[in-house]
Amino acid sequence: MRTDDPAHLGDMPPAEFRSAAHAVVDLMADYLENVASFPVFPPIEPGSLRPRFPSSAPETAEPIAAILADYSALIEPNATHWQHPGFLAYFATSASGPGILGEMLTAVLGQNPMVWRTSPIGTELEQVVVDWLRQALGLPVEFDGLLTDTASISTLIALAAAREAAGIDAAAKGLAARPELGAGLRLYASTEAHSSIDKACMTLGLGRESVVHIPTNARFELEPAHLGAAIAADRAAGRLPLAIVATIGTTSSTSVDPIAAIADIAEREGLWLHVDAAYAGPVAMLPARRAPFAGWERADSIVINPHKWLFTPLDASLLLTRRMGQLRAAFSLVPEYLRTLDRETPGRDYNEYSPQLGRRFRALKLWIQLRWFGLEGIRARLEAHLAIAEAFASWVDADPDWERLAPVPFSTVCLRWRPVGRDLDAATLDAANAAIMDTVNRNGEVFLSHTRLSGVFAIRLAIGNIRTEQRHVERAWALLREAAAEWGVP
Amino acid sequence: MRTDDPAHLGDMPPAEFRSAAHAVVDLMADYLENVASFPVFPPIEPGSLRPRFPSSAPETAEPIAAILADYSALIEPNATHWQHPGFLAYFATSASGPGILGEMLTAVLGQNPMVWRTSPIGTELEQVVVDWLRQALGLPVEFDGLLTDTASISTLIALAAAREAAGIDAAAKGLAARPELGAGLRLYASTEAHSSIDKACMTLGLGRESVVHIPTNARFELEPAHLGAAIAADRAAGRLPLAIVATIGTTSSTSVDPIAAIADIAEREGLWLHVDAAYAGPVAMLPARRAPFAGWERADSIVINPHKWLFTPLDASLLLTRRMGQLRAAFSLVPEYLRTLDRETPGRDYNEYSPQLGRRFRALKLWIQLRWFGLEGIRARLEAHLAIAEAFASWVDADPDWERLAPVPFSTVCLRWRPVGRDLDAATLDAANAAIMDTVNRNGEVFLSHTRLSGVFAIRLAIGNIRTEQRHVERAWALLREAAAEWGVP
Repeated sequence: MRTDDPAHLGDMPPAEFRSAAHAVVDLMADYLENVASFPVFPPIEPGSLRPRFPSSAPETAEPIAAILADYSALIEPNATHWQHPGFLAYFATSASGPGILGEMLTAVLGQNPMVWRTSPIGTELEQVVVDWLRQALGLPVEFDGLLTDTASISTLIALAAAREAAGIDAAAKGLAARPELGAGLRLYASTEAHSSIDKACMTLGLGRESVVHIPTNARFELEPAHLGAAIAADRAAGRLPLAIVATIGTTSSTSVDPIAAIADIAEREGLWLHVDAAYAGPVAMLPARRAPFAGWERADSIVINPHKWLFTPLDASLLLTRRMGQLRAAFSLVPEYLRTLDRETPGRDYNEYSPQLGRRFRALKLWIQLRWFGLEGIRARLEAHLAIAEAFASWVDADPDWERLAPVPFSTVCLRWRPVGRDLDAATLDAANAAIMDTVNRNGEVFLSHTRLSGVFAIRLAIGNIRTEQRHVERAWALLREAAAEWGVP
Repeated sequence: MRTDDPAHLGDMPPAEFRSAAHAVVDLMADYLENVASFPVFPPIEPGSLRPRFPSSAPETAEPIAAILADYSALIEPNATHWQHPGFLAYFATSASGPGILGEMLTAVLGQNPMVWRTSPIGTELEQVVVDWLRQALGLPVEFDGLLTDTASISTLIALAAAREAAGIDAAAKGLAARPELGAGLRLYASTEAHSSIDKACMTLGLGRESVVHIPTNARFELEPAHLGAAIAADRAAGRLPLAIVATIGTTSSTSVDPIAAIADIAEREGLWLHVDAAYAGPVAMLPARRAPFAGWERADSIVINPHKWLFTPLDASLLLTRRMGQLRAAFSLVPEYLRTLDRETPGRDYNEYSPQLGRRFRALKLWIQLRWFGLEGIRARLEAHLAIAEAFASWVDADPDWERLAPVPFSTVCLRWRPVGRDLDAATLDAANAAIMDTVNRNGEVFLSHTRLSGVFAIRLAIGNIRTEQRHVERAWALLREAAAEWGVP
């Protein structure tokens, strides 16, 4: 009916949009008010949802009320509730209220700041917000940058720039059939570095095998002596080192590589230094907490994810660099249909710095958030999370049946149950801790994830959700102890 | 004040979020109702916006009312209005009402369907929607796929998969120091193919120079004979051909490469065939209009952008492939902290198919849109756009002072003013048409872009915005003729 009438082609009629959007806002606000009543992880099995949807798209239009009813029945309860204050798995990606308002406005404006002309405000507000964040993080004015979708892409961009900075002209000539590249290219990161580095190297044609994983010390921090030796060995073998990736806040244990010592090596060797601070970066906004960051201002590039510990809705990753020109060398390619008549003017064309042409207007939500919280408000929330983590670590340390498996420089604690007086072997301990975590997660009040540290199964509790308070972590601790007490009881 | 009180840490209070979000909805609905009253392109110069914002982020929190007032004063009027029905530049990326509702819910749910466990509904609804679209496009059941952010990334994924399919194990070993790769790698696309292909090759370490641009005929369609000859010459020179990219709807003129003939060559040569239908793909939903797509079902991979001509808010690109395993070979890398205890079950982990780990829940907005419009509703809107383009092309053809510069297989018309009886040289014609376009764009009622076809400056009018009606294109035509009449008049 609606689609047969030419007057009703085009978009949803304005009055219907307005009323539907108000209804959606109530669903959204209800969700945020009630999110703690959901089990964080829904009690379903893989493959159980797909059969609940029709196998084909509907031929005829359906009313929005029916769609929203299905949203409430089928979509919302089957989400993993990243917004739940008991979400303590992975690294939190929580969307703050002001950030969500930003996404709403982003959606309606439909900006694509690929070139200045396609979104003047999208382009210039990105410049504003990138510089606001740079200053808040205490980085020097030489750092410029851009917002990308993910740390995976930010790191990929950094390593592509490193490829160009090495003077091998990979963007133009590629890497194959290049005998001048010697015995191959090499990049260095610790054994604890994030998989995004290996993945970037897969994508970039460098290959997983180009990444040399440098051993860490007992605190899971890269050992500079091993790094220096690895570079020397590669040079001796005719290989061409390109870049070092150091991490402030590794994914497993949030360990901190010794940035200053690594920066010395990068400088001496003439290598690009990329710092992965995707999770922990926001802590640099706390001047009293900047010790782990000492030396990062010497990096060529740094990634920090606002969609992690800055409460920004996915997606928003910040790539800062003092070498924008190398990013441009890696990615600029301006065809005629994107040339604009104002190219001689100072408008920035952000697509020249990334593998994507189209781009979302990510600066808007950051601008709203930074103003609504104020830097004071952001800092207070980070401090609160750090204090909760410190408290949780102290409870673990005080309990003889539990073992903390790594230092806690930020807001993530790795632990395992290892009861005194019971001589459980390594495999049994791993199985017991996996079972304990599973029991806790099935309860639904909290959601934890795991990792392996020095070969052992580690339960991992990561604080960073904007709605998490100390009581949620207290509850996680109670649940862990209960599950441990019940382990092995038939 | 707010930030000093521990009770007021955490997120924006629920009642404040609810009322702010309702206020934002009114801003959004007002914008969509009034968008036609803005000049499509704001009358500002590059660099003029940044100084209007404070140079640093605020220390203290600001009320949401002040932020939204600044949004109305500073952000909204300085956007390029992609939502404006007079937006006829580039390819439209318009966000439909139901798509915007989807983005609102996406923002509040905060899903990250990187592995099944981090978003069961995000993962399985993506499987549902990808298959709904596959069927609607008339593609066989062998095609599976995923949603990505942009066509740039979809094409990059396809070409990375092609690299793996060629058996050179680039993901693991990289491309440097590989004498077995002979005299280098080669990919083929027409001279009219999109810059994203070259950019993907820059990123992938294949290099811009690995792309062989095959000449087109006078209709801007790839010439298969040239393609076959280029491949043969490369093989004779010891180079290793990897893939062919054929385009259905090139960016400049929306020309259509002869897919079936190209598929024959790809099959004969054992090369990956990627079809770029980022813009024109949705037309395959119209069975009577499928002729240009004949043979695309033989492709290894196809990209179609819902955020172009399916009215979906940026970002949403659909990559379909019959070789998901090759995508996985190119991108899978599962570290311990992402291993889940349910990996033996049929949950799909979408991060294994793309360069990004984190992913937005893009399926939700598509599910809402496809239901709200119904396939009938989508088809009716596509038919309407095709009819408007046909009408506009007929007006151009009927006016002796104007020249249509390319066939119009879809909804985009390339034209220029070339007045009869005035012997203007090539450079003057180019300058006149650039000036005419500029005059029209400065008027603000419509926004056009340009390209070059066979070396001449072409004004390009592209229909695809969901709000565009025939009257907007009639107005564009009147403005073009007025500007031409005034050209050269002192």
